[in-house]
Amino acid sequence: MRVLGVDPGLTRCGLGVVDSLPGRRAALVAVGVARSSTEDDIDRRLLAIAEQIDEWIDLQAPDVVAVERVFAQHNVSTVMGTAQVAGIAMLAAARRRIPVALHTPSEVKAAVTGSGRAEKAQVQTMVAKILGLAEVPRPADAADALALAICHLWRPAGALAAPQRSLQAMTSAQRTWAAAEHAARRPTRG
Amino acid sequence: MRVLGVDPGLTRCGLGVVDSLPGRRAALVAVGVARSSTEDDIDRRLLAIAEQIDEWIDLQAPDVVAVERVFAQHNVSTVMGTAQVAGIAMLAAARRRIPVALHTPSEVKAAVTGSGRAEKAQVQTMVAKILGLAEVPRPADAADALALAICHLWRPAGALAAPQRSLQAMTSAQRTWAAAEHAARRPTRG
Repeated sequence: MRVLGVDPGLTRCGLGVVDSLPGRRAALVAVGVARSSTEDDIDRRLLAIAEQIDEWIDLQAPDVVAVERVFAQHNVSTVMGTAQVAGIAMLAAARRRIPVALHTPSEVKAAVTGSGRAEKAQVQTMVAKILGLAEVPRPADAADALALAICHLWRPAGALAAPQRSLQAMTSAQRTWAAAEHAARRPTRG
Repeated sequence: MRVLGVDPGLTRCGLGVVDSLPGRRAALVAVGVARSSTEDDIDRRLLAIAEQIDEWIDLQAPDVVAVERVFAQHNVSTVMGTAQVAGIAMLAAARRRIPVALHTPSEVKAAVTGSGRAEKAQVQTMVAKILGLAEVPRPADAADALALAICHLWRPAGALAAPQRSLQAMTSAQRTWAAAEHAARRPTRG
């Protein structure tokens, strides 16, 4: 399975393509950043990002597009542009009938580090290790997009369809993932 | 000049097309609502709305697409979807090289009622009067989209390019508009 991870942003939108390999391994296919100029009007910026996302999807032909779930509580000064780019990435996939998956930042952290509260640097280090890269991909948005793609590949089977499934039915790795995700979510739920 | 007003929303996205007539009058061309089902996934909902917006633009061939400016402070439960639909409307215009204008809710209220703090019902009544309609367009999202289009047609000449222009250089109607807009903006600025 090939996953395109999208870390949405109006100035820099991270894009990372990862293939699943046998034995729960993953291989880097492509990584980069779609950019728009802060000097352009918002509609031109959205168009620039959309055209780059379209190119990536058409060139890489992912089976799934995994997008970071954006919350209204995020950085208020940039959240509107971030939400709009996330929407445009979802639309680009939907136009091609490619399934879309949304993952929260804590799900992504839990998937690649085992802790939903991991620091950004730890996530990026793990992305490089998992993909067998000599260096951490730069900029951070690019590494975050790869982390999203890995998160989607490594999600527990049926995690999205059956979030209440029994812990006993999970593998050890899935239990670790679920526990980390649960721990990370607790503070935001109250 | 023909303006397509877009009142963005994921469940109901208001769409209203207005032509300018000589003597600061305006004529209704078309009004309606793009809808998506709350039972569908977000990517399918965005696709449904995008396809309806595309049809409206291609059929009505507006000179400008006027979109309500969405703020992060809006209703938190719906603001992400609203922002994403606004982004998709801007992208649809940008793909066709049609200029996009953003107007705040208080600008729209000031343009059609003279007061940036007018109630929703007052705005809708004025939309019907301005366009010579026997009844207020329903649903409210449709009327709001027409108000956006009228706001764009009636904005003071050069309002966007030169916000600091002299009050003396304005017509009486423009002064009323500018004063109402200024009054409406004051509380949110401090």
